[in-house]
Amino acid sequence: MTETKDTSHFVEDLTDQSDDFSRWYNEVVRKAQLADYAPVRGCMVIRPYGFALWENMQRLLDERIKATGHQNAYFPLLIPESLLALEAEHVEGFAPQVAWVTHGGDEKLEERYCVRPTSEAIICKMYSRWIESYRDLPVLINQWCNVMRWEKVTRLFLRTAEFLWQEGHTAHATAEEAQKETLLALEFYRDFVERDLAIPVFCGPKSEAEKFPGADMTYSLEALMRDGKALQAGTSHNLGQHFAKVFDITFQDEQGKRQFVYQTSWGMTTRMIGALTMVHGDDQGLKLPPRVAPIQAVVVPIWRKEAEKSAVLEFVGRVRAALDRVVRLYVDDRDQYTPGWKYNEHEMRGVPVRLEIGPRDVANGAVMSVRRDNRAKESIPLGALGQRVPALLAEVQQALFRSALEFRDQNTARASTLAEIEAHFAERRGYVAVPWKDEAALEAQIKERTGATLRCVPLATGNFTGLGADGERLALFARAY
Amino acid sequence: MTETKDTSHFVEDLTDQSDDFSRWYNEVVRKAQLADYAPVRGCMVIRPYGFALWENMQRLLDERIKATGHQNAYFPLLIPESLLALEAEHVEGFAPQVAWVTHGGDEKLEERYCVRPTSEAIICKMYSRWIESYRDLPVLINQWCNVMRWEKVTRLFLRTAEFLWQEGHTAHATAEEAQKETLLALEFYRDFVERDLAIPVFCGPKSEAEKFPGADMTYSLEALMRDGKALQAGTSHNLGQHFAKVFDITFQDEQGKRQFVYQTSWGMTTRMIGALTMVHGDDQGLKLPPRVAPIQAVVVPIWRKEAEKSAVLEFVGRVRAALDRVVRLYVDDRDQYTPGWKYNEHEMRGVPVRLEIGPRDVANGAVMSVRRDNRAKESIPLGALGQRVPALLAEVQQALFRSALEFRDQNTARASTLAEIEAHFAERRGYVAVPWKDEAALEAQIKERTGATLRCVPLATGNFTGLGADGERLALFARAY
Repeated sequence: MTETKDTSHFVEDLTDQSDDFSRWYNEVVRKAQLADYAPVRGCMVIRPYGFALWENMQRLLDERIKATGHQNAYFPLLIPESLLALEAEHVEGFAPQVAWVTHGGDEKLEERYCVRPTSEAIICKMYSRWIESYRDLPVLINQWCNVMRWEKVTRLFLRTAEFLWQEGHTAHATAEEAQKETLLALEFYRDFVERDLAIPVFCGPKSEAEKFPGADMTYSLEALMRDGKALQAGTSHNLGQHFAKVFDITFQDEQGKRQFVYQTSWGMTTRMIGALTMVHGDDQGLKLPPRVAPIQAVVVPIWRKEAEKSAVLEFVGRVRAALDRVVRLYVDDRDQYTPGWKYNEHEMRGVPVRLEIGPRDVANGAVMSVRRDNRAKESIPLGALGQRVPALLAEVQQALFRSALEFRDQNTARASTLAEIEAHFAERRGYVAVPWKDEAALEAQIKERTGATLRCVPLATGNFTGLGADGERLALFARAY
Repeated sequence: MTETKDTSHFVEDLTDQSDDFSRWYNEVVRKAQLADYAPVRGCMVIRPYGFALWENMQRLLDERIKATGHQNAYFPLLIPESLLALEAEHVEGFAPQVAWVTHGGDEKLEERYCVRPTSEAIICKMYSRWIESYRDLPVLINQWCNVMRWEKVTRLFLRTAEFLWQEGHTAHATAEEAQKETLLALEFYRDFVERDLAIPVFCGPKSEAEKFPGADMTYSLEALMRDGKALQAGTSHNLGQHFAKVFDITFQDEQGKRQFVYQTSWGMTTRMIGALTMVHGDDQGLKLPPRVAPIQAVVVPIWRKEAEKSAVLEFVGRVRAALDRVVRLYVDDRDQYTPGWKYNEHEMRGVPVRLEIGPRDVANGAVMSVRRDNRAKESIPLGALGQRVPALLAEVQQALFRSALEFRDQNTARASTLAEIEAHFAERRGYVAVPWKDEAALEAQIKERTGATLRCVPLATGNFTGLGADGERLALFARAY
């Protein structure tokens, strides 16, 4: 085993982002073994590496969901057609893209069931049974599950017929509480996406045209991909009393009067794996944010002669002992691959830090670390590993966020007239911020002429990052995934 | 608020086990808010308390699955009919009980999809693509997901059209490795069920008549419910090369020869929530094993006069500080319920330990603990809580296991002839152990005359508990869920 590169051309096969971003994306998702196509129309398989990433994301988001008082539950996969049809906007929005179950075994069903595209209908039905008094409120429930939307055009993670997500569904006694909850969810999503996924987002209300079917108001998180297209990273809906009136969800208030509840729902999906691929990745492959990376540091042992092997492996054992409980470590001691092949593979898979250990490192009592994001090298003495590697990971995490933020800043323009907006999108992508007074006709024109949609009207309160001068209301337009 | 019992008759409404076990079961599942019926044929909603229990079970089982080298992944919900049909026994076993998706939106599909009843077909299809060389083996993948079986008669948790489970699917180079894996899964299931769920099980091979459609050999874990009926608690299948030949899953061995892989699959489901309800519960409701209980200890503050309230609540705060990071604690300081009402509710919900704190306890600087399993009381000084409560929980855990084991011993009989077996089941339930030489005709006769099926032939190696004298081969018969 030597340090020279082998001939597998593992990475050289990867299309450059600048040549064909879309092709680069499909290749990196498959080569890094995040996911694969399935022999089912529009569906994918999430492979172990992609699923370990999702599990880390789930855990970090689930902690925030629970810390704010929500509990997980599980509702049925199937929804009777009559239940989905109760809310007119809702069924109109979803019926064209649901999968229908018509037979159980050999028997034709009396009523069709749809595979849930989202669970408002079935959950509202249960809430109408469970909620009786103000004492039962608020109801704060979340569900992690699979959903299905029969999309015509699909892309791994970004748009698939089946995907995984969480959906929060809450019920409250007052409109104020529901609005507070809507923004609470938006805020823990923002915190999760910015802090753990290192993706800067703009957060704010959608327009009437873009809101969720059946909602009073939809808030979204918007992220900018490296090809200049926006991606909706999550949504939080204030449903008002819309569903409560249709599903008859009432409670007796403290004065003994029957009232309809106010509701919210909010969701985030496996799409975010696509987002972090497209925000951080480069021509060598993925760059995973350390906080969610399945492998945070990979150890690659190196030796030329058989005689060096035992000393190197003995030292690797000491490195493992120093780091095993500190970071998510993988010691790549596979015999059948060269170090060079391993470097390429772990770069492709976006492992944040590589630790090279050769005879010279053993002699120095140190390890050579290489950052995935900027390739910076640093020799770390064995005794310092337990401190330095976590610090290095924190630096990589921050650098990824800063780099994405710079890219976004460089790709956010201003425009005031339709002509300016058209001129922008004729030449470039990215965001265009437009002074905004909810002009529905202008919004439709922009979409028709440029393909750009109104992503959101960014909030500038609390931890949300706004745009423009104080109090100026701006809408963000972009072409989007 | 006073210590006297209120008049809600919360618990008094619960049917006694001895009056109608089946009704008791349905009531306790719903009153303890583990689950509820859904407006979807044969489906249920797992409510937050039931789901928190499932999350604890998932975590403990998932740790074992990962510790033995398996990785999680996610495969599609839908399986094309042609793929399910490839393996003859498999499709014959499952086709009568699958839900069929025939339409996507308004469009009739060219080929029907079934909602997965189990995922061998889709996973084997992917393995045939992924596995090329002996270097790719073993493949050790697990999936947590929902599955659907269109059952005619359903019971909450025990038999529902949709349920949650994990399914492990592995591929190996040799028959020996596959057999080792089959028993490895059986062993970590046993360890999980006995140690964490406090349910003693017999583990061993099923008969030809009872094995999984498409398997060479099925091993199961069998638990005995309080009504004397057995319940299959999990299964581990050695699939041999059966699926590999049908799905063409081959690898190049070290000599460059193409070989078929050997496979296993193994699963455990939300059914186990029904099992622990029926193994441990009594006429007051659930008794949850502390290791999986969502709430391990509940604090109930007690005061008669408003003047006592602040001293009690101040002390409760100190108890919370002492226990919050030590056990899963719930401080039930809800104003609208009396302590008596709370006692009943938390007994119904099976909380292992109750901590009562009244003015006298405050004066003593101690807390009165009451065990759910045997109602034993004990005054614990504030300073000892951090040590004593975890120890108490461990005692409850052991006592639940011992009690279930005693019940099983008392309800395991011996019989040698068909007449003896018939006589037993005419009078009683429980297990009957029968000296066994794989007599398929006798097995069919026993089933026909008594309704009892061959549960398994218990293994007596490693950590598995056998029956009878050394080397004697016994089959366990019982009526079963």
